[in-house]
Amino acid sequence: MARKASLSGFPEWLPAERLVELHVLDTLRRTFELHGFSNLETRAVETVGQLLRKGEIDKEVYGLSRLQDAAASAQDPSALALHFDLTVPFARYVVENAGHLAFPFRRYQIQKVWRGERPQDGRFREFTQADIDVVGDGRLPFRYDVELALVIAEALEALPIGPFTVRVNNRKLAEGFYLGLGLEDTAGVLRSIDKLEKIGAAKVKELLASELGATSEQADAALALAAIRTEDASFVERVRALGVEHPLLDEGLAELAEVLQAASRRAPGRVVADLSIARGLDYYTGTVYETVLTGHEQLGSICSGGRYESLASKGSRTFPGVGLSIGVSRLVSRLLADGSVAASREVPTAVLVALANDDSWSDAQDVAAALRSRGIPVEVAASAEKFGKQIKYADRRGIPYVWFTGAGGSHEVKDIRSGDQVPADPATWMPPAADLNPRVEAVDAG
Amino acid sequence: MARKASLSGFPEWLPAERLVELHVLDTLRRTFELHGFSNLETRAVETVGQLLRKGEIDKEVYGLSRLQDAAASAQDPSALALHFDLTVPFARYVVENAGHLAFPFRRYQIQKVWRGERPQDGRFREFTQADIDVVGDGRLPFRYDVELALVIAEALEALPIGPFTVRVNNRKLAEGFYLGLGLEDTAGVLRSIDKLEKIGAAKVKELLASELGATSEQADAALALAAIRTEDASFVERVRALGVEHPLLDEGLAELAEVLQAASRRAPGRVVADLSIARGLDYYTGTVYETVLTGHEQLGSICSGGRYESLASKGSRTFPGVGLSIGVSRLVSRLLADGSVAASREVPTAVLVALANDDSWSDAQDVAAALRSRGIPVEVAASAEKFGKQIKYADRRGIPYVWFTGAGGSHEVKDIRSGDQVPADPATWMPPAADLNPRVEAVDAG
Repeated sequence: MARKASLSGFPEWLPAERLVELHVLDTLRRTFELHGFSNLETRAVETVGQLLRKGEIDKEVYGLSRLQDAAASAQDPSALALHFDLTVPFARYVVENAGHLAFPFRRYQIQKVWRGERPQDGRFREFTQADIDVVGDGRLPFRYDVELALVIAEALEALPIGPFTVRVNNRKLAEGFYLGLGLEDTAGVLRSIDKLEKIGAAKVKELLASELGATSEQADAALALAAIRTEDASFVERVRALGVEHPLLDEGLAELAEVLQAASRRAPGRVVADLSIARGLDYYTGTVYETVLTGHEQLGSICSGGRYESLASKGSRTFPGVGLSIGVSRLVSRLLADGSVAASREVPTAVLVALANDDSWSDAQDVAAALRSRGIPVEVAASAEKFGKQIKYADRRGIPYVWFTGAGGSHEVKDIRSGDQVPADPATWMPPAADLNPRVEAVDAG
Repeated sequence: MARKASLSGFPEWLPAERLVELHVLDTLRRTFELHGFSNLETRAVETVGQLLRKGEIDKEVYGLSRLQDAAASAQDPSALALHFDLTVPFARYVVENAGHLAFPFRRYQIQKVWRGERPQDGRFREFTQADIDVVGDGRLPFRYDVELALVIAEALEALPIGPFTVRVNNRKLAEGFYLGLGLEDTAGVLRSIDKLEKIGAAKVKELLASELGATSEQADAALALAAIRTEDASFVERVRALGVEHPLLDEGLAELAEVLQAASRRAPGRVVADLSIARGLDYYTGTVYETVLTGHEQLGSICSGGRYESLASKGSRTFPGVGLSIGVSRLVSRLLADGSVAASREVPTAVLVALANDDSWSDAQDVAAALRSRGIPVEVAASAEKFGKQIKYADRRGIPYVWFTGAGGSHEVKDIRSGDQVPADPATWMPPAADLNPRVEAVDAG
């Protein structure tokens, strides 16, 4: 655990650690499919032009070039580079394949992404994201914003990560409020409010005055809005009590209330309205989500997203969407670092078929085939070493059962944890369900 | 189908096509785990020094550099580049983590790899490989060479790819034979024999004479050896009949016979001894495998590998191994191109819960939650359009069932293929097993 990656920023797991990651990925996949999301993968490579469309992030992009060629550069939009998230490639995919997709289109996508962060930052340069999005053709009912909050709460609830909070806000609510206050540069106000956690209310107030010309009253009202946090739709009254009026504010309040009404019923305590959430990316146009693990708030958001009205477009045709992205590597590295979750064994194998002598290998394969036909993962010993050595092979890997075949074809299976050994029939024997496959579970802190 | 990739060499699938690929990946994973192989992923990025250790392939490597930096070059071994296979990274991983692994170590690894092929070659520049290997510490019993042939035959048998042949040969057999003939440059002979399929026996004979100084008799014997192909161990007699003697030949014959004896019993007709198989890579030291799809031989080998005595080493410690690599993308693109395999529907969803009016969304979510708790993938309609429109939504996606909730809480479910509609209880109703999840099956040529 906590071994140092041999290339800084590129984590690799040991087999038992990979089982934890696989458990997380399988659980997410299962939840997403139960909710009707189709799986997709996009290529890892985009053109530089596609990746830099939104500007500003070129420092983090890894360009690709064959070793004898010149480097990919930001000046050559046809150069190739690795994607840094799954949203930009998905938007490109939707536009390219619109004629083949049924809208609203629901997809999940679990892939690695790369960012050329400086190694000394201690950040990941390769990591896995799990994204879900619903995308419409021209329009997308607001109800999907409600649904995605519920899906993500259910997906995270199914993971062995402990309590978490999905914090939801709405850009329309915030922008309408600022406009109602008379602050026209709503993006500027959002940028300042976004720094609340980092620099505190007093500094944000200074920023609002110096950079946006806000009066003390305007700044106080913006900060009062950002201080509102409720587990149900009661935030509406508290915003109303601030006495600000604007049609966009009304729209935002109604939308966020709809999310909270559904969530407080279906995922009580997991979803809160948090009116300080701004999210940096400016393509969000309504609902915004972020998620923190209780007690691990310093980890930052492990799952973020929102509604975007025009991330993708094709001529005059636009594809609005709402989506969320889970930072799987960040989550898994936290689980592994604090040892809060572990696999019950490090190999898939439930049974090792031992060899009494070197000629019995083929018979042992018959036993193994019979067991595998019922879904039991089995290995056959490679050579007829002393039984003690064969049992040690199983023990070192956490394989719970060793199978022995006697002369005359009698069969016995030994639970090497308890030492119990009983007669068994290869055609019918099953291990207890808990031993069939490795289990990944929360470890008691004790 | 057969849409053109928007970046040449970087294929992307539509949702229904991705289901075919997922089915292949899930089936491989299941088979490998039933045989006790642990999953691993290595980072996509290696140093140039690591990737070019074996030389010669630098043209195909994609270097990585942040957009404002100079290109990665073959002259800078610490530069970063994308891996071009899973063997080199796995060897590096084994050496780095030897202290944490239990040997013999069995792992499978399914990841994308990248090669900077020229676009005009029509080759993939990004593709998925599925590798299995067993690696020992210092030594690895030959029995694993036999086992891997059986595992791979079982894995391919479980895929909807039609008949295939795993062709096996043994480097010791071939090299011993050439040495017994008096041809000392065994690697040179292998290189010439490797061209048999491409240039024919007459041209290979010329090469053997001109480049290796082989006499007509020596060349004829080498060609006679390469012509031997048997489905059982009878190749031994045919080789013996050529009258060549060498201890290394004896060793190779015994090893290959052991593979064929087991395979002819456990995977009859699927594994053949083919004494023409050479495999280009020179790290193989014993068994070599390759696999062709019957009727699609021009596709080349879809699964290749072999035994290597010293792919990885750490000081004087060596890690011999035996492994195979399946070209998943090549296989899947063939299945999709000829339409021989298809998914029964393009979404996971089995049931669409329809809305009678817009206020019934929350009740519909209750129905959906009850069904999902039994593993049924469900979507809820986003708005209360006319039932005809909601049914059309399901129909366009291949969702087989639509659920209706009447006033007063009565429930009915309609199979929209047959039109049959029956009363149903959200707490107990199950679709037939064949409708629960999308099935991926061979399509009758009809």
